Amino acid sequence: MSSFDLIVRGGSVATAVDVMRADIAVKDGKIAALGSNLGDAARIVDATGRIVTPGGVDSHCHIEQLSAMGVVNADTFETGTASAALGGTTTVIPFVAQHKGLDLATVAKDYHALAAKGAIIDYALHLIVTDPTDVLLTEQLPELVKAGHGSIKIFMTYDAMKVDDEQVLDILLKARELGALVCAHAENHGMIKWMVQRLLERGYTAPKYHAVSHPRGSEAEAFNRLITMSELIDQPVMIFHVSTEEGAATINAARARGVKVWAETCPQYLFLTAQDLDKPGTEGAKWCCSPPPRQARDIEALWAALERGDLQTITSDHAPFSYDEKGKLSAGPNPNFKQIPNGMPGLQARLPLLFDAMVSKGRMEITDFVRLTATAPAQIYNIADRKGSIAIGKDADLAIWDTEKEVTFTDETMADATGYTPYVGMTVKGWPTTVVRRGDVIVDDGKLTGTAGTGQFLPRTGGKAAAPTGKIAPEFDPALNFGAKLI
Amino acid sequence: MSSFDLIVRGGSVATAVDVMRADIAVKDGKIAALGSNLGDAARIVDATGRIVTPGGVDSHCHIEQLSAMGVVNADTFETGTASAALGGTTTVIPFVAQHKGLDLATVAKDYHALAAKGAIIDYALHLIVTDPTDVLLTEQLPELVKAGHGSIKIFMTYDAMKVDDEQVLDILLKARELGALVCAHAENHGMIKWMVQRLLERGYTAPKYHAVSHPRGSEAEAFNRLITMSELIDQPVMIFHVSTEEGAATINAARARGVKVWAETCPQYLFLTAQDLDKPGTEGAKWCCSPPPRQARDIEALWAALERGDLQTITSDHAPFSYDEKGKLSAGPNPNFKQIPNGMPGLQARLPLLFDAMVSKGRMEITDFVRLTATAPAQIYNIADRKGSIAIGKDADLAIWDTEKEVTFTDETMADATGYTPYVGMTVKGWPTTVVRRGDVIVDDGKLTGTAGTGQFLPRTGGKAAAPTGKIAPEFDPALNFGAKLI
Amino acid sequence: MSSFDLIVRGGSVATAVDVMRADIAVKDGKIAALGSNLGDAARIVDATGRIVTPGGVDSHCHIEQLSAMGVVNADTFETGTASAALGGTTTVIPFVAQHKGLDLATVAKDYHALAAKGAIIDYALHLIVTDPTDVLLTEQLPELVKAGHGSIKIFMTYDAMKVDDEQVLDILLKARELGALVCAHAENHGMIKWMVQRLLERGYTAPKYHAVSHPRGSEAEAFNRLITMSELIDQPVMIFHVSTEEGAATINAARARGVKVWAETCPQYLFLTAQDLDKPGTEGAKWCCSPPPRQARDIEALWAALERGDLQTITSDHAPFSYDEKGKLSAGPNPNFKQIPNGMPGLQARLPLLFDAMVSKGRMEITDFVRLTATAPAQIYNIADRKGSIAIGKDADLAIWDTEKEVTFTDETMADATGYTPYVGMTVKGWPTTVVRRGDVIVDDGKLTGTAGTGQFLPRTGGKAAAPTGKIAPEFDPALNFGAKLI
Amino acid sequence: MSSFDLIVRGGSVATAVDVMRADIAVKDGKIAALGSNLGDAARIVDATGRIVTPGGVDSHCHIEQLSAMGVVNADTFETGTASAALGGTTTVIPFVAQHKGLDLATVAKDYHALAAKGAIIDYALHLIVTDPTDVLLTEQLPELVKAGHGSIKIFMTYDAMKVDDEQVLDILLKARELGALVCAHAENHGMIKWMVQRLLERGYTAPKYHAVSHPRGSEAEAFNRLITMSELIDQPVMIFHVSTEEGAATINAARARGVKVWAETCPQYLFLTAQDLDKPGTEGAKWCCSPPPRQARDIEALWAALERGDLQTITSDHAPFSYDEKGKLSAGPNPNFKQIPNGMPGLQARLPLLFDAMVSKGRMEITDFVRLTATAPAQIYNIADRKGSIAIGKDADLAIWDTEKEVTFTDETMADATGYTPYVGMTVKGWPTTVVRRGDVIVDDGKLTGTAGTGQFLPRTGGKAAAPTGKIAPEFDPALNFGAKLI
Repeated sequence: MSSFDLIVRGGSVATAVDVMRADIAVKDGKIAALGSNLGDAARIVDATGRIVTPGGVDSHCHIEQLSAMGVVNADTFETGTASAALGGTTTVIPFVAQHKGLDLATVAKDYHALAAKGAIIDYALHLIVTDPTDVLLTEQLPELVKAGHGSIKIFMTYDAMKVDDEQVLDILLKARELGALVCAHAENHGMIKWMVQRLLERGYTAPKYHAVSHPRGSEAEAFNRLITMSELIDQPVMIFHVSTEEGAATINAARARGVKVWAETCPQYLFLTAQDLDKPGTEGAKWCCSPPPRQARDIEALWAALERGDLQTITSDHAPFSYDEKGKLSAGPNPNFKQIPNGMPGLQARLPLLFDAMVSKGRMEITDFVRLTATAPAQIYNIADRKGSIAIGKDADLAIWDTEKEVTFTDETMADATGYTPYVGMTVKGWPTTVVRRGDVIVDDGKLTGTAGTGQFLPRTGGKAAAPTGKIAPEFDPALNFGAKLI
Repeated sequence: MSSFDLIVRGGSVATAVDVMRADIAVKDGKIAALGSNLGDAARIVDATGRIVTPGGVDSHCHIEQLSAMGVVNADTFETGTASAALGGTTTVIPFVAQHKGLDLATVAKDYHALAAKGAIIDYALHLIVTDPTDVLLTEQLPELVKAGHGSIKIFMTYDAMKVDDEQVLDILLKARELGALVCAHAENHGMIKWMVQRLLERGYTAPKYHAVSHPRGSEAEAFNRLITMSELIDQPVMIFHVSTEEGAATINAARARGVKVWAETCPQYLFLTAQDLDKPGTEGAKWCCSPPPRQARDIEALWAALERGDLQTITSDHAPFSYDEKGKLSAGPNPNFKQIPNGMPGLQARLPLLFDAMVSKGRMEITDFVRLTATAPAQIYNIADRKGSIAIGKDADLAIWDTEKEVTFTDETMADATGYTPYVGMTVKGWPTTVVRRGDVIVDDGKLTGTAGTGQFLPRTGGKAAAPTGKIAPEFDPALNFGAKLI
Repeated sequence: MSSFDLIVRGGSVATAVDVMRADIAVKDGKIAALGSNLGDAARIVDATGRIVTPGGVDSHCHIEQLSAMGVVNADTFETGTASAALGGTTTVIPFVAQHKGLDLATVAKDYHALAAKGAIIDYALHLIVTDPTDVLLTEQLPELVKAGHGSIKIFMTYDAMKVDDEQVLDILLKARELGALVCAHAENHGMIKWMVQRLLERGYTAPKYHAVSHPRGSEAEAFNRLITMSELIDQPVMIFHVSTEEGAATINAARARGVKVWAETCPQYLFLTAQDLDKPGTEGAKWCCSPPPRQARDIEALWAALERGDLQTITSDHAPFSYDEKGKLSAGPNPNFKQIPNGMPGLQARLPLLFDAMVSKGRMEITDFVRLTATAPAQIYNIADRKGSIAIGKDADLAIWDTEKEVTFTDETMADATGYTPYVGMTVKGWPTTVVRRGDVIVDDGKLTGTAGTGQFLPRTGGKAAAPTGKIAPEFDPALNFGAKLI
Repeated sequence: MSSFDLIVRGGSVATAVDVMRADIAVKDGKIAALGSNLGDAARIVDATGRIVTPGGVDSHCHIEQLSAMGVVNADTFETGTASAALGGTTTVIPFVAQHKGLDLATVAKDYHALAAKGAIIDYALHLIVTDPTDVLLTEQLPELVKAGHGSIKIFMTYDAMKVDDEQVLDILLKARELGALVCAHAENHGMIKWMVQRLLERGYTAPKYHAVSHPRGSEAEAFNRLITMSELIDQPVMIFHVSTEEGAATINAARARGVKVWAETCPQYLFLTAQDLDKPGTEGAKWCCSPPPRQARDIEALWAALERGDLQTITSDHAPFSYDEKGKLSAGPNPNFKQIPNGMPGLQARLPLLFDAMVSKGRMEITDFVRLTATAPAQIYNIADRKGSIAIGKDADLAIWDTEKEVTFTDETMADATGYTPYVGMTVKGWPTTVVRRGDVIVDDGKLTGTAGTGQFLPRTGGKAAAPTGKIAPEFDPALNFGAKLI
């Protein structure tokens, strides 16, 4: 019997399917054995009385350089992944974020350099495409996908980022050729712009009016439009950050008629409402994200959609803007709501919030918690060979939960560089006091012990989640389209 | 007992509700009495054995100057209304058609002049708005609506015509203020452009590929988007020329949840399919219209939607382009499908086609025929005080049908200036051999007797069809939107 | 010009389509002319400033002998039709009401005798079938349908009346053969019985618990079951007294997929709620009907379904039980809710309530009022050749409305024999002060002038409303059912 | 390091989430370790190149004594569980099958005795309740549920078995009190009886007409009715053997609106169609089961519903009637279709058919196969603490698949006592050549080595699948039901 590098002993080990009393032995960064009396190890972590889950996979988060309105993301890969790790997350999928005018290949190189230098945990990268030029589509994208970026994100709103419907179709078709998954921020751009203008013209400038400026219908509308295009091309899509009941219903209806559509929601849509933006002065700016938090009924509808499987993952959409002149207040001390960068931090809070709601408070099972926060994102983004579960041969990425520990969130609780948390004042029960990444203890008794630059890039293809269904739209069916061969 | 100007004697008189054996007496252009032995009249028309219906109201047709791709509409008001009259139609609602760069007020003046000079039958006019500038919205539109143009048409596709989503919202809101009805050509522009490009790039240039270039989903998508915007503003819309089963289903779903949406279809979607475009050489150009004719299942779905009331009217969408260098072949003798102006004639064929299908062949009732072709359009466009029915005090607009007369359509059957009919070769049973407009016999035994310039303009407001429901979207509800007053 | 029997002069005449300023001339009981200066008449009724509508058609009402739990209907044909007439209704369709054990042919004979003796207004008769024996199905029903009873009513609940699913299918198929329309009281019997038992066992015996004892879902469930059977046989059904939002939605969904289903609601579901049953002591018994009044949201949903056309008629379901030992209190002075006969009077109140809500208060148009209360029921029950509209040749059945007259309902307002009205205390604006039946003034200045025994029986077939659609279920399609010929 | 009883070495181990290369060590019947180089064991099974899955859980099968029409089930627990084991299944959940007139407690005792004597694999037992008397509901059921029968099956059809709607509600409410799951055979009894009668009357007696006699709509109707009752009580239900597209859609709609409904399908609905009943003479009798196999489009719809999660398990519904005078031909050599006992064998074929379709042919993933056939049924029926997965501490129930082995089904392939297989002639790739139950090799190289009487009873409660959602129907909400306390 070999000697192991690490044994996590005595915990209650949860996968997306099972909960088992087992020790976990790690060798060379991989899970080598499960059982009891597994032998010796260089390091023993005592998990008696604790729950051991796979380390979280946060498949939607912004780290480094995110330039909304020219302002700068507060987090480097080091601070961002530190906060992720402290919250139990061991894999992130942030973005290679093209802004219009930038060269995607160069941007990719830059992000890789930053990640290699700073990341404490492992990472894959989505490609944000805002400017689908011929060169990008025919040269850069094939190379970058081949190099392991198996997913492409598009924006259907934001002046600086949005692609139009023709471009969506171009990207979907290219993704189909390359076997990549297309993810989308889907909101109706015109409806939002129109509301913004009316609100500002009438003097409704406070941060809370940001919530009003994104009409509920702008979400379901864009979902339906995206899904319609997805059906035409027969190329699956992942819909990011579902926030409304109507949005979830649109996804349910599409899935019921056989469309291959994936979807996620985020803690801000499960724990916050538009009322949270209604703070004195400009403080509501901290709660400005897009889409905005909605109403209580949406929260219930989103939980139901998670239970039903219409939404498969919960991500943070971490988008860290400090509450100062470099971030939220970059337009000055009294910005109107449109001048406030959109986004809020959440890499660290995501898992504790969900563990508390699902496990401690009992809304769902611990296996559901694992599935929604680790296993399903690993599967959908095709890194499940290494990530997202506890099984022999997988990377030894583990979060060890003290189920009794209670933490009340303060702005200081969080290790990211944003300086505040939108969940301030909430108390959660259950905390990932020890976190293991590829066998290394990177969080020990709640303290960060991992080091910058040790995170690895996870190359991947689009995998099965990105594969067409084979159901051809009439326009692409030679029997119905006068013999045209179009795909 | 007064002496009448005209008595139509002995016919079977149909309204949208009743069929009655009655004489119709006319005085001063109005229906003055119904009954028998009504007295004397300057003229007696014998309708024994015939069915007398209200003259048709064709609420969607293009006459004069329609410039698609710079080419010219074949019909003047004289030729267009002549063909309408010969087909049993006594009221048309064509367009004051702004093209981008044109001044709407000037365009309106021009169309009024042309109509006043040429029209043989009465007419209202929709305003086509392609360029909703501030001046147009705040000055011209109020004046023009006040002057009796109670409906505004927008295009969501065609490069030369389309308005974007923000502009749709601007127009909807302005229409709400002015009490006008917004009508829309709703197709997803990007999906169509994208398909056109792919088809042409691959050499699929024949006219039949026009049908392929408008994906089925582009219709339901645009309907859903328009309806979503309509709900936001709480301003009703009329959706023009529904062509697909999915489009009809989208309208049904919206109506079922309480949205006030009106819709029409046209004979080209009830009697033709995409196969009709598959003609040798460029001849298929005659069948190119947008949206294109679809499939057999769509035809069944549209009839079902008419029976259910989800579609309320059947119009011609008459858009007459001659099959020569002034029209369909303006780009040369061998145009690709994208170079072919979109549209087909139908003012004259509409009623005979529908009478044959609904009455002679028995698909629906004669009362349904009257409702769908005359009464409902008159009600929706708010000219029902004068048009669309046979009742005391209404304009004496009548079509007298020889129910046994069979006509096989040839290109020569039609009196419009297009020179062909897409229904060539079809045989219909039932023909409006005599047509009366405000008491004047303008078609007598199948011959035109009406004269140019006798048609009258019908000023109108948007009326009840254009009135908001009063259900406010959350974004406009002060109780939910932090007190903002936005409408 | 002939001399007429009656001219109604100067009114605003409304049909389901038109509103016209016209005199109405009557000869031999028929409408002979519409217009002005129509000539002389034996009697002139001045309708200046009034609205003249077709006399109402109440296609669902119980008169004479209704034996619920052995108690006796308070109304004879004389009192029932008197109250109908005083409320503006000139045609009723009550029932030949078989109870289990009774012979349908004998029952029919009895009802005809009672109606012939007592009826002041014209009447058709539905056949209630509770005991579909072979003799009834193969001998009596064919004869009775042939004799002009074109509609059959079934109950899916009530121990004394209900038919089971097999019997429903037997009756639907027989109706298909005979061309008769099947109408149904559709509630889930088991759910109701179960709730009744639980409520009574626990001592919840007050009248208000009647409303609780009919679960909301029992309605939509039974609708769906009935519709499923109707689809199997391809035989249309009319669903009586829709009371819930879910019930209306079930009908909408069926119609959207092409099923031929008709439906009605009643004033008790548009103006009352379950709260109305919450009266001191046993007084709530007056408000006990089945299904019971529901909630405010149902009222809104039913109005929306009427606007959409999913419900086509509004009837009274008049079921008059006096509030004494012969009726509501036949089980003693303190009955439990299950011992209270179900039903409430409404023949007289129906039209004034609806005129007030739709016309005076403006919820819908006067044309809608006419359609829902007169024209559509006449069409569906195939008596439109004589009833339900104002057109040449139709029976001269008219209600002349004083649009300014306000009436506050008291128990004394109503002329039926029930002795109370569930609408007590409500004030309506608009009253049918003069009512004409086949040219005879049967209500004059609000006083009954018609006489018993002058009403006529209206024989009719099932007509178009009862005709199959032609869409065969797979089980009846020889291509799919191994060649079986089953219909 | 302990010495193990058994090590399964070198296989590719699949759970519902993971596929891992791992050895499996077993001690005392439990999975003690996963990994490599785990140590010594009394027995080593070489699984190199093979896939190791959890032993199948067949949660719907009939064994012993099933008396349909007085005939006897061909299988004893010995033959039934032998065939199950040979097909890779290590847990079954057959029935304690009350027939009307039998005493449930006695029946339970009898089945336990038979199972204890014959079972080779472990078993739980559902309780079939056909006669919900007071004694049964208030005395026997509480005791039997407490004794570990956590699920109750009801039939909504079959004269000899069916409960009516009131009884369904009684059972649902009692199940709610006891924490048991209610499973249902849901078809509309009346529709089926009616079709049977019409078919037989007209001489359509061949076995294939059995398929015609169960109208498609009878399934979705009964689903909707059951779900409506389930909603009223807020008690979850499991719908057995979904066979139609409409049935699956009904379940999807219910789940979309938040109803807690579980559902299964079976191989006969995924691999057979009604055409399979069309055999010469009476041979089609072998394919007579209820509901019957349907059409190709249903097969596609059911696979889609499995992918979507609307159906959670695939069971055999094994109901073994020999093709002789003791079984299918008990009514004589030429029975009409109604005289043929309903059911077909499938315990052994289930997993190989599904492995072939899902894994070998690639329709879904091996993890999906495990989930649908083992993990999900173990979870839903609350035996997941021991069964349905491969995890430390679980029972060592394993199926070891030779993924290359091809087997063509013949009547002799199957070890059950039925004597035929409805899948005769089909060839599958992949076979469970070795099967382990609690660490014992009960199938070795395709030969049965397990012995009768070694199977264990698995007592269980209804668990989470049976727990109410907490959403109270209005009828049970004191705020809406006049204060009644009804649950």
